[in-house]
Amino acid sequence: MITSTANRRVKWVRALQTKRHARQEEGVFVIEGVRLAREAVASQSPINLVLHTDHLNTRERGLVNNLARLGAEVEVVSDSVMSACSSTESPPGLLVVLPIPTIPPPERLSLALVLDRLADPGNLGTILRTALAAGVETLFLTKGTVDPFNPKVVRSAMGAHFHLPIEFLEPRALAKRLEGLETWIAEVGQGVLYHEVNWHKPSALIIGCEAHGPQPAIRSLAKDQVQIPMKGPSDSLNAAIAAAVILFEIVRQRGES
Amino acid sequence: MITSTANRRVKWVRALQTKRHARQEEGVFVIEGVRLAREAVASQSPINLVLHTDHLNTRERGLVNNLARLGAEVEVVSDSVMSACSSTESPPGLLVVLPIPTIPPPERLSLALVLDRLADPGNLGTILRTALAAGVETLFLTKGTVDPFNPKVVRSAMGAHFHLPIEFLEPRALAKRLEGLETWIAEVGQGVLYHEVNWHKPSALIIGCEAHGPQPAIRSLAKDQVQIPMKGPSDSLNAAIAAAVILFEIVRQRGES
Repeated sequence: MITSTANRRVKWVRALQTKRHARQEEGVFVIEGVRLAREAVASQSPINLVLHTDHLNTRERGLVNNLARLGAEVEVVSDSVMSACSSTESPPGLLVVLPIPTIPPPERLSLALVLDRLADPGNLGTILRTALAAGVETLFLTKGTVDPFNPKVVRSAMGAHFHLPIEFLEPRALAKRLEGLETWIAEVGQGVLYHEVNWHKPSALIIGCEAHGPQPAIRSLAKDQVQIPMKGPSDSLNAAIAAAVILFEIVRQRGES
Repeated sequence: MITSTANRRVKWVRALQTKRHARQEEGVFVIEGVRLAREAVASQSPINLVLHTDHLNTRERGLVNNLARLGAEVEVVSDSVMSACSSTESPPGLLVVLPIPTIPPPERLSLALVLDRLADPGNLGTILRTALAAGVETLFLTKGTVDPFNPKVVRSAMGAHFHLPIEFLEPRALAKRLEGLETWIAEVGQGVLYHEVNWHKPSALIIGCEAHGPQPAIRSLAKDQVQIPMKGPSDSLNAAIAAAVILFEIVRQRGES
């Protein structure tokens, strides 16, 4: 059992949990808990490392065996080492390091979501989870967006990382990828009402940063603005909420054919 | 200038920030930052106390004067005292203690939202903000729901506390308040598709706790279940997202008359 945070693997995990560049350099990230570990097994991803405490039940031990079959080194750690490695206040007792998934987007997109400089990790995770449920086929992120493999994002996304293609793009490359899509940008109090747009054509939706909205280079990629009407004294919605309301209107319209 | 966290007022603010029973016993709560303080002034609420650092600009000083006119005692505090009082990692330099608003709901409700044992403060705050923007007229909470005057809730709600009536109710009292409303409960994978419901009648929507859904006593208040269809491998949505998608469908349908 590893009982010291000076252990080489423990130091590695802690760096991966806290440093974006450590994740990027090595192309790996960390997931915590049984639910996400099951998703990893289901995705048949290779697995680098499993750390767990010695309080696992029989099913959890089975899960660790499945992770080991995918190539994981397995280490038992003390509770205090797990606390030091976990990004949560109540560590789930099981932590997995694995490669950042590379999921190919479909060749012809019918629904893409662009997030411009989203800063809040909880929001980004919630958007990932929502986008997957709404049938978004690929997620484009601009420079300045929080790392989608940040532990808070991973936690809120509830496994969406194993299914949804995610790409960081410069505005010029993004413009190329959006060719052939009707691209709309969500704005507060400006543009067409979101439910009056005809969403049957292949479409992309741009959601801007929480505080300042989208940057000009990204704004110029949109054909037009779209807004969600608001009642009373409200002057804006949370970015994840705005994305959800528009995405599920797209689902609704397309379902009616 | 107050420079010690042993100061009586500083201790009081710290208790209000961290202890639900302290807020409840005294009927006050804490808001932070210029944006929420402006909302408080606009609401003409009496104000108990303002703490601020000495880095305010001219407009912020004007705001403090307006708060003082509403009855606030005003104290300048050191940066470290402000850090100790603030619930955020980057304290905004201005913090206000004021009575918990009592906003009367309309006598006849046409749209109510019920939250059953919602545990996540960020989710509750986002739902408050979203509910206000969707024209929800009153928010009913059941025992076991996180305190809506918890600092994280207050921060995410972006001022909705000054406009939206919030009531904690036991199931029996809740049943009484829902009389005359068509009450729907959001479930995962069960019930009528949310966009196939006719939302023109006076309605209530029940959203259950993130992990376990609604409890039986609350479930039995609903006439029927409603669901949001999901694509691919998704098996649930964040509670705030589910609330938003259904509430804005209600707005959409009612807007079409």
